[in-house]
Amino acid sequence: MMPKQERRAPSPPADEPAPTSVGGSVLSEDERWMDLALQHARNGHPSPNPHVGALLVKNGQLVGVAHHERAGGEHAEAGAIRAAGDKAAGATLYVTLEPCNHHGRTPPCTDAIIAAKIARVVVGVRDPNPNVEGLGVEKLRAAGVDVTLNVREPQARASIAPWQKHITVGLPYVSLKLALSLDGRIATRSGASKWVTGPDARAKVHLLRSRNDAVAVGIGTALADDPRLTVRDAPGDSPVRVVFDTKLRLPIESRLVQTARETETLVLCGTDASQAAEDELASYGVECLRTSQSTEGRLDVQAALRLLATRGIVSLMVEGGAELAGSFLAGRFADELHVFVAPILLGPRGRAGAVDWAGPDTPQQAPRIATPAWELVGHDAYVHGPLVYPE
Amino acid sequence: MMPKQERRAPSPPADEPAPTSVGGSVLSEDERWMDLALQHARNGHPSPNPHVGALLVKNGQLVGVAHHERAGGEHAEAGAIRAAGDKAAGATLYVTLEPCNHHGRTPPCTDAIIAAKIARVVVGVRDPNPNVEGLGVEKLRAAGVDVTLNVREPQARASIAPWQKHITVGLPYVSLKLALSLDGRIATRSGASKWVTGPDARAKVHLLRSRNDAVAVGIGTALADDPRLTVRDAPGDSPVRVVFDTKLRLPIESRLVQTARETETLVLCGTDASQAAEDELASYGVECLRTSQSTEGRLDVQAALRLLATRGIVSLMVEGGAELAGSFLAGRFADELHVFVAPILLGPRGRAGAVDWAGPDTPQQAPRIATPAWELVGHDAYVHGPLVYPE
Repeated sequence: MMPKQERRAPSPPADEPAPTSVGGSVLSEDERWMDLALQHARNGHPSPNPHVGALLVKNGQLVGVAHHERAGGEHAEAGAIRAAGDKAAGATLYVTLEPCNHHGRTPPCTDAIIAAKIARVVVGVRDPNPNVEGLGVEKLRAAGVDVTLNVREPQARASIAPWQKHITVGLPYVSLKLALSLDGRIATRSGASKWVTGPDARAKVHLLRSRNDAVAVGIGTALADDPRLTVRDAPGDSPVRVVFDTKLRLPIESRLVQTARETETLVLCGTDASQAAEDELASYGVECLRTSQSTEGRLDVQAALRLLATRGIVSLMVEGGAELAGSFLAGRFADELHVFVAPILLGPRGRAGAVDWAGPDTPQQAPRIATPAWELVGHDAYVHGPLVYPE
Repeated sequence: MMPKQERRAPSPPADEPAPTSVGGSVLSEDERWMDLALQHARNGHPSPNPHVGALLVKNGQLVGVAHHERAGGEHAEAGAIRAAGDKAAGATLYVTLEPCNHHGRTPPCTDAIIAAKIARVVVGVRDPNPNVEGLGVEKLRAAGVDVTLNVREPQARASIAPWQKHITVGLPYVSLKLALSLDGRIATRSGASKWVTGPDARAKVHLLRSRNDAVAVGIGTALADDPRLTVRDAPGDSPVRVVFDTKLRLPIESRLVQTARETETLVLCGTDASQAAEDELASYGVECLRTSQSTEGRLDVQAALRLLATRGIVSLMVEGGAELAGSFLAGRFADELHVFVAPILLGPRGRAGAVDWAGPDTPQQAPRIATPAWELVGHDAYVHGPLVYPE
């Protein structure tokens, strides 16, 4: 739990970069502590609140550390102050997000910081919430606390991306997950899709599910694969399950319906979907949400996402099929891409690929992961990162 | 150039595997020397001869090393003996392929080994050539030389795979190269394909070209991309260029035709292709090879490959497009796969994917790289390995 400067080798060879050098630039002490706070911020599942991490440092020593674990639970700043006890007075607080200054389910962190006599506060990113922006910092400065802003700002902003999108745009942050063959297919000519990727990739998908508030599939995938969409091969809770199902075709005998009492299950359907079907699904614990449709009769993805956001769904992972993935890409609703590629070739001539949409005119205009992180999972490759849509 | 046992750290930590441990088993001294010989074997471009590497070791010391650089040039065994000079007597020869026992363009290596008074010969893999198999070993043993066979046999066999296929099956060893988007596409809806992958991937493709005797494209790709198919961004010679062009549609103004005097260019066409077109291409240095066609009018891939093999083409890399790649996969003519995956999404609904074929019924039956080697090249991933076709 010590930051890197504490572990630096006594005399690194002159021809090697120092351990704290990143991209040729050496990180400052503030930046290194902030990186540690950002590591802690990733813990927990605080949705619909943001991920936040906080450290208290006094005389170069870490005296308190905490993260925001659950909505309604202690904030990271309060946790770090509690952990530091008497040592908080005169210390520096490193916090990934500007401390709150309002009474929510917990008291304002600004009050706790001032009461603990903290000398300095280093903030990763200011609160983008249009209602509270800046007020926390102003209150601290008015009370004589030294405040430094925007330390590791891009990294800190990335750590709150889902929450920021939810509170500013009113839509969930969407991760698009694809598991496909080298030739970009999710099934063979006969429709068989079990399994394209290997067990390690599937376990990773379960881990991704546990980090999202909800996962979604189209009705075609629900009918073809009868998926459970739960977290089984990884630690963590199962997300809310969402089916895009304009005409309420989801069968009562499907695993999703049969397990709806254990794991929350929502069906997004058209305004003219059968009331009898809705009633029967409701009797199994499935909630149907009616939303507007496009002129071709498809569900309006933006309206559907807005509805999910009002239900407190901050992060949503779309797991297919090709038509739903295509709608999300065409409408630019996918914020992040997670793709598993298996070293096999599936072919099927004349069938749609993994993502069914028109696509861009030129490769330069293609949606892309600008800074792709490639990993190996078993025999498969896994690439992920934020999606960029060039003009 | 010393094998690993010469460089082993004095006392490796007890909890780390020794440097010579592979997959839990410790390599013998013979295996370690053979691995070094296999490294040397990869050098050169000896086609249509096999890659061969040879070492002479005396009292644990390397006293001679060589590889077969070019057809018509010195064999690896002869080179190692020449390098060792007087030290060859009593030494052990490590050679990746059984020494030849026939008069070709150079004298038999068996005679040179016996004349140099080499005490022991360690062979990676026996000569699979149906005409000479076993004769080299028998001659050495009859002369009192101690012979050990099949040391690192799978690795040694892999090193001669193209040559073995050529001499036993009479077909070139085929590598299928694909450069595609995450969703398995090689072009956008408008047909734009420059560039899907990045400059690092393209340089790697040039390196692969330099290691093959020939590269092939379909006429569709030749018309759409007007490629050069030469080696420019890597060291090495340009391969022979082959176009599958049933009706001789390759334009005179294409780069391939305009540069045919500098880089050998073959066009495979149907038996009924225009004689006038052939004559015009010939006047630019392009050679047309007529071959049989299927009932649908497509070129018979097997007949075409047999024709290329008779021209001394041992290794062929197929670079697309989708239709040619599909024909090679459907006919199981592709021995090895090389795929570059760019982290972008191209989409085009309704257009063929990177490989246009029917594909298998189930994912289990899909052609695959059983032991995939994934690498990062710039922002793209690169996977390669021998193709397996499950039943």
